[in-house]
Amino acid sequence: MRTLLMAISLDFERLTDLMNEQAQFGGTADGGLHRLALSDEDEAVRDWFEAKMRGAGLDTRVDEMGNMFGRRSGTADGTAPVLLGSHLDSQPYGGIYDGALGVIAALEFVLTLDDQDIQTPHPIEIVNWTNEEGARFETPLQGSGVWAGIHSLDAEYERTDRDDRRFVDELERIGYHGAEPCEPRDPYACYLELHIEQGPQLESKNKDVGIVTDIVGVSRGAVTFSGEANHAGTTPMDQRRDALVPAADLITQIRRIPTRMGENTVGTAGYLDVSPNVGNIIPAEVTVTWDLRARSDAVLENGYRQVQAEATVAGQREGVDVEASEWVRLTSTQFADRCTSALRAAADGLDYEHIDIVGGAGHDAVYVSEVCDSGMLFAVSEGGISHSEDEFTNWTDCYSAANTLANAALEMAME
Amino acid sequence: MRTLLMAISLDFERLTDLMNEQAQFGGTADGGLHRLALSDEDEAVRDWFEAKMRGAGLDTRVDEMGNMFGRRSGTADGTAPVLLGSHLDSQPYGGIYDGALGVIAALEFVLTLDDQDIQTPHPIEIVNWTNEEGARFETPLQGSGVWAGIHSLDAEYERTDRDDRRFVDELERIGYHGAEPCEPRDPYACYLELHIEQGPQLESKNKDVGIVTDIVGVSRGAVTFSGEANHAGTTPMDQRRDALVPAADLITQIRRIPTRMGENTVGTAGYLDVSPNVGNIIPAEVTVTWDLRARSDAVLENGYRQVQAEATVAGQREGVDVEASEWVRLTSTQFADRCTSALRAAADGLDYEHIDIVGGAGHDAVYVSEVCDSGMLFAVSEGGISHSEDEFTNWTDCYSAANTLANAALEMAME
Repeated sequence: MRTLLMAISLDFERLTDLMNEQAQFGGTADGGLHRLALSDEDEAVRDWFEAKMRGAGLDTRVDEMGNMFGRRSGTADGTAPVLLGSHLDSQPYGGIYDGALGVIAALEFVLTLDDQDIQTPHPIEIVNWTNEEGARFETPLQGSGVWAGIHSLDAEYERTDRDDRRFVDELERIGYHGAEPCEPRDPYACYLELHIEQGPQLESKNKDVGIVTDIVGVSRGAVTFSGEANHAGTTPMDQRRDALVPAADLITQIRRIPTRMGENTVGTAGYLDVSPNVGNIIPAEVTVTWDLRARSDAVLENGYRQVQAEATVAGQREGVDVEASEWVRLTSTQFADRCTSALRAAADGLDYEHIDIVGGAGHDAVYVSEVCDSGMLFAVSEGGISHSEDEFTNWTDCYSAANTLANAALEMAME
Repeated sequence: MRTLLMAISLDFERLTDLMNEQAQFGGTADGGLHRLALSDEDEAVRDWFEAKMRGAGLDTRVDEMGNMFGRRSGTADGTAPVLLGSHLDSQPYGGIYDGALGVIAALEFVLTLDDQDIQTPHPIEIVNWTNEEGARFETPLQGSGVWAGIHSLDAEYERTDRDDRRFVDELERIGYHGAEPCEPRDPYACYLELHIEQGPQLESKNKDVGIVTDIVGVSRGAVTFSGEANHAGTTPMDQRRDALVPAADLITQIRRIPTRMGENTVGTAGYLDVSPNVGNIIPAEVTVTWDLRARSDAVLENGYRQVQAEATVAGQREGVDVEASEWVRLTSTQFADRCTSALRAAADGLDYEHIDIVGGAGHDAVYVSEVCDSGMLFAVSEGGISHSEDEFTNWTDCYSAANTLANAALEMAME
C-alpha cells in the first residue's frame, strides 16, 4: 500500500446526476442508450457536454474530427497536460456506461478540483473522442485514431453510413466540424481512461476496480468457401461440394485453437452468411468470420496461421474453394508503467480491491498510447454484459472507479 | 427385351415446339422460367394449355384446387382412365423442363394418338397439378395432395404468400377456381409421370431414361441452439455458451450420418440462422435445418434419431439449450410393379438405355400413388442441375423420355 500525497473524493451525487443526465440524450425505453456517432442524439449530448465544460471554466476546442477537448490551466508554465476521457457515442441500443462513464468521471474530476480549490502544476484536459464504437461509420476508434496519426483524415471523411451519408457531411450537419487540426496540440504528460470492463472478471472475483496492464492484439477476417448448389435429395453424398461443411469444421477449430494458447487468447466465429440458405439446397457459398485475440503478438500470429491452415484443409476435404482475407490486425498494447503504477497506487490509497487485468477489446487508449504514456482503469461490469441495453454498473462501482481515476490523475498532475 | 404390342413415335418437332411455346410464359432473359403458382404467368400458361387441350378435342375440367384435366374418351364403356401429367408451375427463376416436360409429353401423346388415329379401350386423361413446387404458397405437391386426400382443401385455401395473399383469392383472381370437386372423379387405371431427374445419375451413367422404382422418405426439421451473446474479446473461452459451436458440430454429423446408411440415404444442413450474427459477438441463438432422405422408412427413422442425439450431445458439450422440431415426415413410396414394368418394357422396346433409379425428391406421383397404381420416369438432367435457370435437358433426351412415357401409357391404355 502506498499513501497518496493528497487524496480527493469526488461528489457521489453529482457523478450519478451527470451520468443520468447524459443518458437522457438517446436514452431508450428499456434504460439503454442509442446514440450513434454524429446522430441527432450525439449532437445533443455534445451540446450538453460543451456547456458543462464551459460551466466548469474549461478552455474548450473541437478538432477537425469532432473530438472535443476542455482544458483546465496548470500553475507551472509550459508543463504537459494530463489528458483524461473516453467517448460519448454508443452502440445501437447499447448501454449508458460504455464510454460515457470515462468522460463523466473526467468532468466530475475537474468539478471536484474546483470545489476544493485545488490547483495543479500540469494542465488537465478532458476529451470526448468521436466515434469510438465504429457502429455507424465502420471505423472503430475513429477520432482517436486520426488524432494519433493511425488513420488518415481524408479517408475517414469519406466513410459512409448505411444510408450513404458521408462522415464529413454529418460532422458538418451536427456542427462539430471543428477548425483545430486533429493532432496532439502539445506534448501530453499522460492519458488515463476509465471504461467499464465489458467482461466478467472483476465481478466474478469480487473486485472494485481493474488496473489494465495490456490490451490484446486482434486478428479479424473472413473465410469464404465456394462449393456447388445442388438438390439436397437427389445429389449423392460423394458428389457434393457443400460449402457449409468446411465452414462447420472451421468453426469447431476456431473454438479449439485458443485452448492451448494461454488464458488471454480467445477465438470466435460470430458471423455466417450462407447462400442460397434454403433447407433443401446444398449450400453453394458460405462466409464465416474469425476474431482472434491474444496478449502476445507472436501467439496471435500463430493462431492466425492455424485458422488459415484449418480453413485450407477443411476446404480440400470437401473439394470446395477457399478464400481467406484478414480485415484487421491490431498489435497488442502494453500500457506505461508509470500510468498503471499511479492507478494501482490510487486504488490502494482508497482501499479499493483491485486486480491487474488484460483488456480484451480496443479502446481509445490503445491509439493514444502511440502519442503519450497511457493507462486504463476498468469499472465492474455486471455479468460482463455490454453493447446491450442490459449493460449495468451500480453507482458504487462507478464511483469507486471514477475516484480511482481522479486520484491517479491528480497524482500525475501534481508531479 | 420385351416387344411392344404396338409402338408409336411422338412428333419430335411438335414436342420441342410445345416445350418452347410453354417456356414463353414466365420465360426469363437467361433462358429459365419464373412461373410461380397462381401468378399472372401461371394464368397465361394455363390459358394456353386449356386451349391446346381443347384443340386436341379433350374434354376439359378444372377442379376446386385449380388442377386442370383433359380427357380423351376410351372405346370400352366404363373402363378406368389412364392418367398422365405433371405440373406447369416453376420455382423462382427455375428451369423450363421441371414439371413442364411431363405435362407437354402427355399432351404430345394424345396429339400423336389423334395423328395416327389410334383409339384405346381406356380413356386417357392428362393433368396439370396446381402448385407442385410449394415455392409461393409453401405446401409442395399442393394440388395433388388435396386431390389424393392428403391435405385438406380448407386449410390449403387459407395459405398465404409473402404478401399475405390467400391461395383461394389468387385462384379466383386468375380464373382457375373450378367447380369440380378436388378428388378422383373415377377409379383410375394408373398414373404415369415423366419428370427430369434433378440429379446426376442418368447423365453420369450415360443412360437415356430412368425407371423410378421408389421415392425416398423425407425427414425435415430444425434444431435451435440457445446460448448467450457476449463480447468476443472479453469473454474467456471457459465462460462461453456459444450457440454456433454445437450447430457446427451438428452440421458435421449431418454430413457423416448418411455414410453408414446405404446409397440412397442423404443428409443436408441447408439453412442456418445466426443471431445476432456480428463478428465480434458470441452467437446467442442459431437455428440449423436438417433434411434427411432414405429409401427405407426404418433407415430414415434411425437417421432422424441420430440427428436428435447429436444435437443433444452437442448442446450439452457447450452448455447450450437445444430445441428440435421435425416439420415434415414423408414415408417412402414404392411404385406399382405393373407401372414400372410397363415403363421398362417401353424403354426396351424403343432400345433406350435405362436404369432403375430411386427418386430423391417429392413428386405429384407420390400422392397420386395413394389413389391408384402409379409409376414415374426420369429424363436426363444435365449436371443434375434444377431449380435453377441453368437446368438443361437436350431435346433428344426429352424426346426419348416422352416417347417411353407414351409407349408405356399406350400399352396400359390398350389393356
